[in-house]
Amino acid sequence: MHPLSRPHSLERRQERLRQLLERRKLPLLLVSNPVNIFYLTGFRGSAGVAILGPSEALLWVDPRYTQQAREQARGVEVVEERGSLLKAAGRWLGKRGVKKAGYEDGHLTCAGLRELAGQTPGTVRLTPAGELVEELRYVKDPEEIECIRNAGRLTAAVLAEVIKQVRPGVRECDLAAEIDYRLRRRGADGAAFETIVASGPRAAWPHARASAKLLKKSELVIFDLGAILRGYAADMTRTFYLGNPSRRVRSLYSAVLEAQQRAVRSLGAGKRARDVDAAARRALAARGLDGCFTHSTGHGVGLEIHEKPRLARGERQRLEAGCVVTVEPGVYLEGLGGIRIEDTVLVRRGGREILTPAPKDDWIIM
Amino acid sequence: MHPLSRPHSLERRQERLRQLLERRKLPLLLVSNPVNIFYLTGFRGSAGVAILGPSEALLWVDPRYTQQAREQARGVEVVEERGSLLKAAGRWLGKRGVKKAGYEDGHLTCAGLRELAGQTPGTVRLTPAGELVEELRYVKDPEEIECIRNAGRLTAAVLAEVIKQVRPGVRECDLAAEIDYRLRRRGADGAAFETIVASGPRAAWPHARASAKLLKKSELVIFDLGAILRGYAADMTRTFYLGNPSRRVRSLYSAVLEAQQRAVRSLGAGKRARDVDAAARRALAARGLDGCFTHSTGHGVGLEIHEKPRLARGERQRLEAGCVVTVEPGVYLEGLGGIRIEDTVLVRRGGREILTPAPKDDWIIM
Repeated sequence: MHPLSRPHSLERRQERLRQLLERRKLPLLLVSNPVNIFYLTGFRGSAGVAILGPSEALLWVDPRYTQQAREQARGVEVVEERGSLLKAAGRWLGKRGVKKAGYEDGHLTCAGLRELAGQTPGTVRLTPAGELVEELRYVKDPEEIECIRNAGRLTAAVLAEVIKQVRPGVRECDLAAEIDYRLRRRGADGAAFETIVASGPRAAWPHARASAKLLKKSELVIFDLGAILRGYAADMTRTFYLGNPSRRVRSLYSAVLEAQQRAVRSLGAGKRARDVDAAARRALAARGLDGCFTHSTGHGVGLEIHEKPRLARGERQRLEAGCVVTVEPGVYLEGLGGIRIEDTVLVRRGGREILTPAPKDDWIIM
Repeated sequence: MHPLSRPHSLERRQERLRQLLERRKLPLLLVSNPVNIFYLTGFRGSAGVAILGPSEALLWVDPRYTQQAREQARGVEVVEERGSLLKAAGRWLGKRGVKKAGYEDGHLTCAGLRELAGQTPGTVRLTPAGELVEELRYVKDPEEIECIRNAGRLTAAVLAEVIKQVRPGVRECDLAAEIDYRLRRRGADGAAFETIVASGPRAAWPHARASAKLLKKSELVIFDLGAILRGYAADMTRTFYLGNPSRRVRSLYSAVLEAQQRAVRSLGAGKRARDVDAAARRALAARGLDGCFTHSTGHGVGLEIHEKPRLARGERQRLEAGCVVTVEPGVYLEGLGGIRIEDTVLVRRGGREILTPAPKDDWIIM
């Protein structure tokens, strides 16, 4: 049985949302982000609108999803709607005589808000509620951690298999296809994002896609992959070298590895997000490489591949036990390529646990 | 070379946008939808903000994407920004003394608009522009049609291969993994959406995912798949029966096939979208099945899997030569399952061309 289908965990989440709404003095929340609807109700369709309040719990879906929603959703009344779901929710707010309702302004589009407001009488105040459900999702519950742990193991296992096929003359995109296939065969819903296999100069693009380029001797190759399993993502990067690396490349690799390990060791409940970023950045600066590290150190991961917190400069937010984040410093040098090492890591009270158990010292493929 | 990288086609699109802005009396458009940015500039990153006007052509990207944007984007100046891209664009509008700028209100979130407006002096009027770039994308240019045609052929070829593995005892999700793998190996960027393999009672969910359920004798099984190739999607559904179907199932299949073929034959430049939907619905109504057809007949397809037009009730919009749409009637019966048949079809002046050339009469797997 899907852990998320367990009524008690879904109901606990809805209950936590109700408490949060009460603290924010918000009578109702209109939830439009499908990921948040899944988190709260278990319904996994791509479209829906939910309203949750102290005693309100409704989910509007279109006829494609009626049957699925009735089987999957817990703790909400499923309402089938042939027209616009937002308009239906707006009409309901009006009929119900609601005075104030929050909406997810980080998800709802300007056009969506207009649609909603157009059906709602002037007596209803629609107010941006920020990311309330994302706040709940910041700390993962045990069922969620177990999903991510399994996704991380699966991801590491697949890379270990595919790495045996890495040699000069293989196409990047064929390795990426191989990874995605093996993720699925081992039970993943799929890849959590477009699998990156980037070799040689292309590895200098932090978000290069896998292309038809052939792997070549004396080149770096970056693998950035992650399974999505029962809705939950893992995220992991390893970098390899084909051939005998120069002293320069060896020194770059050990600099990134050290930065990654320092940042991982700096994780723990109560630490600030920016301090984890600073730990990675300081380690690279000591080798004069901070200028080559062009992105932030990491991000939360869970139902989405990019969640809060951002491990970046200026992020004062404190980590809590149950946060799951990536730690992924990298250096990028035009012409030479790039080196990035990334793990998905669970923050614990006393420290941390790496959820993507793949070796990092076995990076030279002769 | 990627057809979309041809400078002339990208510049032609930017020119068409400029003409459209002039007709709408809009001095500038802020483009935030990554798909539209790709369409206009060739930049394929997941985040960016562009401003286009009579002589303005800028693209803000974060440092992850600077190098990639400089290599891919045509006709725009690439600006690297470490902070919020929307805020940077807002500041630029202010400095430039712009009086009025449109934004993509169907894409920009309420929070995004606030971020943009917060950096823009009161003298700049930000105005919802609707879906201007989507209007341009409504009619595909020859390069785009060629991409979709190739994606359609690839999709049909992969289903023909995978169908050989269909037999009782195979898991739905393994067939889906096999499809996705073969799409990639044949050169697709990947699957255009989560491949559906839904058998038995699960086939009654129009958007069921592939599950661990085993295929069984005397069940219907729906395959809904599509390659994405050079950014462009195809979309195709075929339904099969494992074993010897009853008269009832044979009659349902022939009803859906007839509805699909009638709707395809009704396509042509100048036809209204709702009339294509009505053609499918009429054919099913003649067999008393219109109540089992719970979704609309089709949708545009191109850079996104769901584009305009919708082939649905009440859609008065006229099709034009160069529109590419799906035609996909289906019937769903709780307990029994579902039957859906879908092609991606190019609308031509004198008629139409099916872009997903896979047989429909070979649906019984003994």
